[in-house]
Amino acid sequence: MSDKAYALFEEQQALRGIDLSAVKAKLKALRVETPSWGYGDSGTRFKVYKQTGVPRNPFEKFEDAAQVHKLTGVCPSVAVHIPWDKVDDYAKLKQHATDLGVSIGAVNPNLFQEDDYIFGSVTNSNAAIRRKATDHLLECVDIAKTVGSDVLSLWFADGSNYPGQVDIRARKAWMYEALKEMYNAMTPNMRMLIEYKFYEPAFYHTDLADWGMAFNLANKLGPQAEVLVDTGHHPQGTNIEHIVTYLLDENKLGGFHFNSRKYGDDDLIVGSVNPYELFLIFYQIIDAANDKNSLIRKAADNIAYMIDQSHNIERKIPAMLRSVLNVQTQYAKALLINLEEVKAAQENQDVLGAEDAVRSAFEFDVTPLLQAVREEMGVPVDPMKAYLASGYDEKINARGKGGASW
Amino acid sequence: MSDKAYALFEEQQALRGIDLSAVKAKLKALRVETPSWGYGDSGTRFKVYKQTGVPRNPFEKFEDAAQVHKLTGVCPSVAVHIPWDKVDDYAKLKQHATDLGVSIGAVNPNLFQEDDYIFGSVTNSNAAIRRKATDHLLECVDIAKTVGSDVLSLWFADGSNYPGQVDIRARKAWMYEALKEMYNAMTPNMRMLIEYKFYEPAFYHTDLADWGMAFNLANKLGPQAEVLVDTGHHPQGTNIEHIVTYLLDENKLGGFHFNSRKYGDDDLIVGSVNPYELFLIFYQIIDAANDKNSLIRKAADNIAYMIDQSHNIERKIPAMLRSVLNVQTQYAKALLINLEEVKAAQENQDVLGAEDAVRSAFEFDVTPLLQAVREEMGVPVDPMKAYLASGYDEKINARGKGGASW
Amino acid sequence: MSDKAYALFEEQQALRGIDLSAVKAKLKALRVETPSWGYGDSGTRFKVYKQTGVPRNPFEKFEDAAQVHKLTGVCPSVAVHIPWDKVDDYAKLKQHATDLGVSIGAVNPNLFQEDDYIFGSVTNSNAAIRRKATDHLLECVDIAKTVGSDVLSLWFADGSNYPGQVDIRARKAWMYEALKEMYNAMTPNMRMLIEYKFYEPAFYHTDLADWGMAFNLANKLGPQAEVLVDTGHHPQGTNIEHIVTYLLDENKLGGFHFNSRKYGDDDLIVGSVNPYELFLIFYQIIDAANDKNSLIRKAADNIAYMIDQSHNIERKIPAMLRSVLNVQTQYAKALLINLEEVKAAQENQDVLGAEDAVRSAFEFDVTPLLQAVREEMGVPVDPMKAYLASGYDEKINARGKGGASW
Amino acid sequence: MSDKAYALFEEQQALRGIDLSAVKAKLKALRVETPSWGYGDSGTRFKVYKQTGVPRNPFEKFEDAAQVHKLTGVCPSVAVHIPWDKVDDYAKLKQHATDLGVSIGAVNPNLFQEDDYIFGSVTNSNAAIRRKATDHLLECVDIAKTVGSDVLSLWFADGSNYPGQVDIRARKAWMYEALKEMYNAMTPNMRMLIEYKFYEPAFYHTDLADWGMAFNLANKLGPQAEVLVDTGHHPQGTNIEHIVTYLLDENKLGGFHFNSRKYGDDDLIVGSVNPYELFLIFYQIIDAANDKNSLIRKAADNIAYMIDQSHNIERKIPAMLRSVLNVQTQYAKALLINLEEVKAAQENQDVLGAEDAVRSAFEFDVTPLLQAVREEMGVPVDPMKAYLASGYDEKINARGKGGASW
Repeated sequence: MSDKAYALFEEQQALRGIDLSAVKAKLKALRVETPSWGYGDSGTRFKVYKQTGVPRNPFEKFEDAAQVHKLTGVCPSVAVHIPWDKVDDYAKLKQHATDLGVSIGAVNPNLFQEDDYIFGSVTNSNAAIRRKATDHLLECVDIAKTVGSDVLSLWFADGSNYPGQVDIRARKAWMYEALKEMYNAMTPNMRMLIEYKFYEPAFYHTDLADWGMAFNLANKLGPQAEVLVDTGHHPQGTNIEHIVTYLLDENKLGGFHFNSRKYGDDDLIVGSVNPYELFLIFYQIIDAANDKNSLIRKAADNIAYMIDQSHNIERKIPAMLRSVLNVQTQYAKALLINLEEVKAAQENQDVLGAEDAVRSAFEFDVTPLLQAVREEMGVPVDPMKAYLASGYDEKINARGKGGASW
Repeated sequence: MSDKAYALFEEQQALRGIDLSAVKAKLKALRVETPSWGYGDSGTRFKVYKQTGVPRNPFEKFEDAAQVHKLTGVCPSVAVHIPWDKVDDYAKLKQHATDLGVSIGAVNPNLFQEDDYIFGSVTNSNAAIRRKATDHLLECVDIAKTVGSDVLSLWFADGSNYPGQVDIRARKAWMYEALKEMYNAMTPNMRMLIEYKFYEPAFYHTDLADWGMAFNLANKLGPQAEVLVDTGHHPQGTNIEHIVTYLLDENKLGGFHFNSRKYGDDDLIVGSVNPYELFLIFYQIIDAANDKNSLIRKAADNIAYMIDQSHNIERKIPAMLRSVLNVQTQYAKALLINLEEVKAAQENQDVLGAEDAVRSAFEFDVTPLLQAVREEMGVPVDPMKAYLASGYDEKINARGKGGASW
Repeated sequence: MSDKAYALFEEQQALRGIDLSAVKAKLKALRVETPSWGYGDSGTRFKVYKQTGVPRNPFEKFEDAAQVHKLTGVCPSVAVHIPWDKVDDYAKLKQHATDLGVSIGAVNPNLFQEDDYIFGSVTNSNAAIRRKATDHLLECVDIAKTVGSDVLSLWFADGSNYPGQVDIRARKAWMYEALKEMYNAMTPNMRMLIEYKFYEPAFYHTDLADWGMAFNLANKLGPQAEVLVDTGHHPQGTNIEHIVTYLLDENKLGGFHFNSRKYGDDDLIVGSVNPYELFLIFYQIIDAANDKNSLIRKAADNIAYMIDQSHNIERKIPAMLRSVLNVQTQYAKALLINLEEVKAAQENQDVLGAEDAVRSAFEFDVTPLLQAVREEMGVPVDPMKAYLASGYDEKINARGKGGASW
Repeated sequence: MSDKAYALFEEQQALRGIDLSAVKAKLKALRVETPSWGYGDSGTRFKVYKQTGVPRNPFEKFEDAAQVHKLTGVCPSVAVHIPWDKVDDYAKLKQHATDLGVSIGAVNPNLFQEDDYIFGSVTNSNAAIRRKATDHLLECVDIAKTVGSDVLSLWFADGSNYPGQVDIRARKAWMYEALKEMYNAMTPNMRMLIEYKFYEPAFYHTDLADWGMAFNLANKLGPQAEVLVDTGHHPQGTNIEHIVTYLLDENKLGGFHFNSRKYGDDDLIVGSVNPYELFLIFYQIIDAANDKNSLIRKAADNIAYMIDQSHNIERKIPAMLRSVLNVQTQYAKALLINLEEVKAAQENQDVLGAEDAVRSAFEFDVTPLLQAVREEMGVPVDPMKAYLASGYDEKINARGKGGASW
């Protein structure tokens, strides 16, 4: 039946002027990085529920991540978080990754889990703590060099809980100082991705509270600094795809931390709350990737897609698979948009025509397309089913409870 | 100077038709319960910063709470959370409280920190877990009997993270079943206060998501069940004082969990984000307390004022003092509203006159009034200063780090 | 190609255990009421853009609405707003509707466009204005009797803009009084649907601010009073499907005003912002429609689906068609959920399995199904295309600019 | 009594190290511009309630505004909106203003009330409409030259309602083009203040949606372009004072449009919803005004304070007076913050000490201070009372109903 379905789908799309071979090439080229911490236990401030089978160390996290790549073919790299993934011998970890068919991706410093950081890390009014925090950033540059990673992904929990608690402008200057020092230590191939967040864990002000602050900082640092958009880090109602296309236009969109939220920074499976939003983000990216301006096209092709989620109550590996499949699904749908048709309607100021040209692509069932792509890539047509049938989920239960968590 | 200030204040208020002796009587009658857990370490999902001097057990928590009462005179009871405050011998804890000049207040069951509750407690689809959860509720009724408490304060973390995950209507029925069993076990003097919450830790649906669900449940259970308003548990923009006055009108407002929020359920010091909102809540309560209908008046006098906060980065006891002082301050200001003046402007449909009659009371400095009240109550006129001078904060540092937390 | 597509679709669904004949019957039975005012000019406080071809009177509004019904087959009734649709001879309007193949649906009183209502209508502190407002409600009951409508749909703009401006509890009582009088005037077949709204045009408090207030009021009035859910009238983040299923469980869900919002009460085309939310609302309704309890089943079958939108910048009739098609699309997708599969996963506490059982239905392309249904109903398989080809949109341009608006 | 009150107040403040003469000088130097349109009728999309006595033309608006200045002494300029305030002879309007003791302040172009702008003004995909819109901007520069104004205040309603409707990046370029042309036409003493808005009237995307977009645009335009912060134009929960201090640090804060909101862009009287927020904004400004860096100090002294409100249901002139009084009140309170004390607590990382040093200033009653300032300025000590006693409100009723509105 799937052959029939694909044939029919191809026929449909041809009639719409969509060349599936180009679409398939794009889908095969998609890369989605999974985070080592997404395989461990996580939770809320109220409770971290311990699951059976969670990896007990960085090596086991890479084993789980390798499963996701094996089944999807699009997740060849794994982000690490230091010190969660601190090991004595990074060369060994790198070799382990290579043996598993994956590599070490973005290096994420962690500046929010030591008592010293209660009032901030790089923006702490205490110079010694700022020094310590900056040294950790430099350590992460070194680790990146060691493991061959070219992405440094920075999120700061720094902020304050009460009016008057801190000198906001002094902290702005300290943030720049620390990042400038880190920036200078990077090799020319490295990129610094700067994340922003509306709130949490700080509840009055957050030093990097929105894209504007991250963008301005990246501008001051230089071309190797870019903005990282975490889809869960915005005020309610924010038009994220607008920010995405704005940053692309400024050549400052570095990458994504994908996840879903309905309320705060819920860190749910990407695409599970409002799949249309994810589709619309990809629409803006694909639109930029087809721009007349080669700089914009390049910017659109240079985005680091990364997942950043907390699987508090669901099985970790299937949750990651579901996330990757959701990303693929929405990307595939967005690739079916007939951009010429959209442009024509836009030029005619035909509101409903333009809306329809975008939305109607969302309504296609891309299962036949994705199955065809997977077949051509030599991975299972239904990665989730294949995983559940593989016995891996039962095998790792031998690890017992009490694995890694943050 | 403070005598002069009070004399002047009294003169001012007399001109406005406000009888300060009545106001002072009200202020002396105010009771604010502090929570045992507010003295322990707390934090966010990212980190619980450990502070020096945090109580190591329920007995020490009561010692700290007793300081707050000693200095303010208005915090004679302390809410407990089971099992955080579980002890072998509740009679001993009760005696300890009595010796310290305080008593055990609301008993709070805890149904969100055991692995069994990952998919819910009283609304779990597994009947055995529902049984276990309900048994814990009954245990809490027994503890309340033992310690002489007449308030059971219920918050449920129960909910789901994904569409389809649970049968929402089945869970609604299970919630009622469990609470009905608990209700039936209560003695006639007991009150069940039912809390609601917009979200967290559940991120798709929360079984008791808003006041309407808690209210409807309380209605079905009977007159001993009432709604508990946590000031941090609403969607952005919610007019909390409207909900408060609505519940008063229905004789179903049981009490408050006071705290402040700017974003999610931030659990900051009450009155620190928008003090005017706290003032407006008290305005509605005082308005009801002066109603022609004696039932409404009684409802307004029967409210359990409780603090429920997480002092993540600030010293615990001063944070609690600040909270109590903020509550007193806003209550005092609201007592200065000339309700006759407000009503007259309302009847004249004089928008700005009515607004002014309310707001202008907020603009008074009530320090002289509160100092006079404290003097008459025999407590320090500046409780915070008195605490900082008392040496207690240094004394408890001997407890070291690593005290109680949740 | 569409025959092949349907055959394949049917085969797919049969494999999933979905019987398309039952699904098609449901789709044919769906009724979506369109609002007369949705065909007129509308806008924001900043500007009402005047479009060419807008109906100039109630008769022309019905002509446009009849087009929508003719092309979709599922919109046989049209809601009216008094006095926007006030006519001297309602019998004539009724006959006009009948001649056009449609009927008069819900009667909507309007209590927000006379200077008298600046401080409220049924909750105005001025008894004479309350009387006038209540008389208008009674007039609408009479009109409903005259035109053979059995639904009275009530939205009140009543509220206040400043703290202290009004006596909230007095207004609560006045609201009840007015509606009780109206309720008593209704015939036994009539239903009163009570709408709530978070804010706008009132910016401090709204008398009926949330479902809880509307629900409590409906409960007090009696079985003929029910709650009307406008999908744009909630705080950000609200889980609307939770409210829907809660009201169904209480047998108090009267109907919907469908529209979409990203920010405030944006009144955009339903399904254009987050189509998954609309799908999830239908999932809860369909789940209730298959309940073991016949009362719940009946409640789910008794919902009045109505559209309530402002087509500020888009062509009115195509906007209405798009809305109806979107409703059909999401309802069709929700009908493809295998409820047995969901229940089984829920019972196994298989989070990802249950989520998948719901979401995967959303991912089907229901175009072949809807085309088949339309063919069997004798309406165009593509109503939008048929409309654009019909010449009607050009014909009405003869009406010129400056038609009806509110 | 007010002498006693002031003497006591002075004594109190001296003990805190606050020099009231400096505070008074600052209060006398404060300037708050009122908007001509704030004196006219306004409303929501549902209804503009017509009030008696509303000015019928720009000349009468200036007469009303002059009353506000006469009574407060701090409102010497009046913002105008073109074409709402379009007159044949601007020299005559300017002279009228001079005769009344006021002047023409910021010139506000209006690009949202002609049918041509239904799909945008300076960002319209139609080049002819962009030209027309840009010409209007240039016309406003000319008007500013004519009337001697040096502030051009720009708000654009431009945006879209549906995904796909417009080419967001093309519009970003068009916005820049139009503003560059306007910028080039300005004289060297002129400032262009660029406003941003989260949403409304556009409901999908707004071309200038947040401070980051306005800031980036201002940066590209040059030093005469700055950001205008409208306090009602942010997502819920936004820390506005953070944005304010961030822009000050970048020397790009041009001015404010003051108003209050609880929900959307409610345009209520500033300080009526959360007065503490207004106080905290002034705290950040005063902190910058005392910076070691002279550039920051200058930036803080160069802010254009303007009111922008809709007085939908309240009397216009008293509403404006109330607004100005609220601004003065919160500015006065913020001037009482002992910045040394705040800094010391910040350096000690004393969270509660720093919070207290800020908040405690808010709790003072500044009535004696403001009365003293007004006496010294030769204006009534209670401007509201003076206005109500003046007979002006009755006099203008002769204008009847149906005055200017937008």
